[in-house]
Amino acid sequence: MNSFTFHNPTELIFGKGQLSQLENKIDQLGSKILLVYGGGSIKKSGLYDKLQTIFQKKNCEIVELAGVEPNPRLSTVHKGIEFIREHKLNWILAVGGGSVIDASKAMAVGALYDGDVWDFYERKAVAKDALPLGTILTLSATGSEMNRGSVVTNWETKQKHGAGTTFPTFSILDPENTFTVPKNQTVYGISDTLSHTFEQYFSHTPEIPLQTGLAETIMKTVIGNAKKALDNPEDYDARANLMLSSTLALNGLLAMGVETDWATHSIEHAVSAVYDIPHGGGLAIIFPNWMKYVYKEDVSRFKRFAIEVWDVSPEGKSDEEIALAGIEAVRNFFNEIGAPSRLADYNIGDDQLKVMAKKALPFGPIGNFKKLSEEDVYEILKMSL
Amino acid sequence: MNSFTFHNPTELIFGKGQLSQLENKIDQLGSKILLVYGGGSIKKSGLYDKLQTIFQKKNCEIVELAGVEPNPRLSTVHKGIEFIREHKLNWILAVGGGSVIDASKAMAVGALYDGDVWDFYERKAVAKDALPLGTILTLSATGSEMNRGSVVTNWETKQKHGAGTTFPTFSILDPENTFTVPKNQTVYGISDTLSHTFEQYFSHTPEIPLQTGLAETIMKTVIGNAKKALDNPEDYDARANLMLSSTLALNGLLAMGVETDWATHSIEHAVSAVYDIPHGGGLAIIFPNWMKYVYKEDVSRFKRFAIEVWDVSPEGKSDEEIALAGIEAVRNFFNEIGAPSRLADYNIGDDQLKVMAKKALPFGPIGNFKKLSEEDVYEILKMSL
Repeated sequence: MNSFTFHNPTELIFGKGQLSQLENKIDQLGSKILLVYGGGSIKKSGLYDKLQTIFQKKNCEIVELAGVEPNPRLSTVHKGIEFIREHKLNWILAVGGGSVIDASKAMAVGALYDGDVWDFYERKAVAKDALPLGTILTLSATGSEMNRGSVVTNWETKQKHGAGTTFPTFSILDPENTFTVPKNQTVYGISDTLSHTFEQYFSHTPEIPLQTGLAETIMKTVIGNAKKALDNPEDYDARANLMLSSTLALNGLLAMGVETDWATHSIEHAVSAVYDIPHGGGLAIIFPNWMKYVYKEDVSRFKRFAIEVWDVSPEGKSDEEIALAGIEAVRNFFNEIGAPSRLADYNIGDDQLKVMAKKALPFGPIGNFKKLSEEDVYEILKMSL
Repeated sequence: MNSFTFHNPTELIFGKGQLSQLENKIDQLGSKILLVYGGGSIKKSGLYDKLQTIFQKKNCEIVELAGVEPNPRLSTVHKGIEFIREHKLNWILAVGGGSVIDASKAMAVGALYDGDVWDFYERKAVAKDALPLGTILTLSATGSEMNRGSVVTNWETKQKHGAGTTFPTFSILDPENTFTVPKNQTVYGISDTLSHTFEQYFSHTPEIPLQTGLAETIMKTVIGNAKKALDNPEDYDARANLMLSSTLALNGLLAMGVETDWATHSIEHAVSAVYDIPHGGGLAIIFPNWMKYVYKEDVSRFKRFAIEVWDVSPEGKSDEEIALAGIEAVRNFFNEIGAPSRLADYNIGDDQLKVMAKKALPFGPIGNFKKLSEEDVYEILKMSL
């Protein structure tokens, strides 16, 4: 096990009806709030009206920033920072999924920074101070509700970068708020959660039985509840298990003392920076190909993955065959839940492969399970066509 | 899954040589420190000298409170509070195991409270403010380094109570600091960690695959590393895995959305309030008997426990036989590592059973997997003779 520091101060408020806790939070953090949300699904679901009732009861001054994009844009972040400064707002309430929360994190640190917030994403500066940020999660996927990561796209330069920004002060996770998530979004969330676990599970760090078992538990829970939630979107327990899985998959727990990978995320970011495809869709396409490309770095890890997570029967198979059967099981699972399997599903051809390969390595080689060069990424993208 | 709130702000600083981080903490929290430790093992191990070097470098004003007892006493807590007030100290540094940390937590909240700190333990008041508290863990067992629980014994009234107090601000966990822990203390720590997991694993809450798998992972990790650490006390990875297991077993993770039990802890507290026996020893004696007494409340849970955690082969056995074989495996494991198996091992006879049974229920019936009355506790204690 490697050395590590773990410090996650986010208050997680989980379960049916927990929205009522918002009133206390307004008392604590102040009543001048920037309300950030996406394309309006919170109006259809009724959540917006419930919020208005609370805001009125608490005499809040609300400035709204609606329409945050699925791959949130730097220009949107700039707008939010302007609103905060202009109206001297106390804190930010992000209502939505990872994109809304990521954009809000950027606003939280950007509002208290003299330079351009993009500096944090270009690694020119490190975020220190932040406005308080509360989130109400409506989509189980990114884990952004309980970590300090934020991914923002600079559409002018076609760059999609991640940065460490700030932890949400609190996050309200009511599984019922995910009942109305459409099927494709649910699928992308499942793909995203599994992918986060893969990035941390495939590691060469020795003697990590805890982190291995925790990751396997999360993967098995997601696999075991995915179809239930897709078949019956109002299955509370299935939604609750997917929700808590996605939070625990990326709150720092799985990375304790472990060298993690994250190459596949860099590749996907490059793809969706060029083509603006859904992150979870891109991951479902690329991850099995990454696995095929790298499994020889540690066949025994992939063998264990196949047996423990995917119930591959080892009988009569060589270690390599078991490992490959596990990778095949990942592909099959993604197919079964209706995730895309090829870049062609998004009408992406081979004309920009080199551009994307270059974009995937903005700061040098990526990955740790296998260090990938631009050529390696090109090969993985070719396998994904 | 039940609703829950999780909020654990402790910064965990884990690994070889992490003591160096203490300097930053002194910069942040101040240089007037109450140093709390136990019977002097930190002097033998060399840790005390390393601390002195740092304190001198940082020009610290240190007030020492040494000799905290294995079941820390209210009188010791009172002394610490006096020192803090008299010398106007900035914060507390607890160096030791759960007892030292628990006592220090009591001092941290007691120092800022007008009444007697025992009020918190008698549930007459709720702790709100606390002095900052840092810990340097030297014994893997109680998980106190990353939770707000504290157990203190009032020797005048022979009462041993737990209370929610304050989270450590930071905890430094260097597995090397546990290399010199004697064999019996290592055994008690293993028993304590497993017992914490049992208390949260045996639950009737439905649909908790995540919490179930996380608990099983912790139990399997402890079982898989116990003998390694006992055979070779300087096995870094074994010590690291036991250390992180004990922290994760009681930092709130396993209790997310789960109805937990804690009857066995109440029973053990009653026993060691009367006889002052080691907590981990008492748990190793009582837990298998609690299991035998309650398993019929949910045979399927105990069946799963037997198969997943103890590798009991289900072949040719009824569910009840599998469940009982699992409980037998717990007893055998504790015997193999050299834990006590009967109260007689501590020369405890049947003369105080009724007194202890009464003491085990200071605030009414205990436990949730099966609600236990005074008579139930009496029976379990009789089985433990």
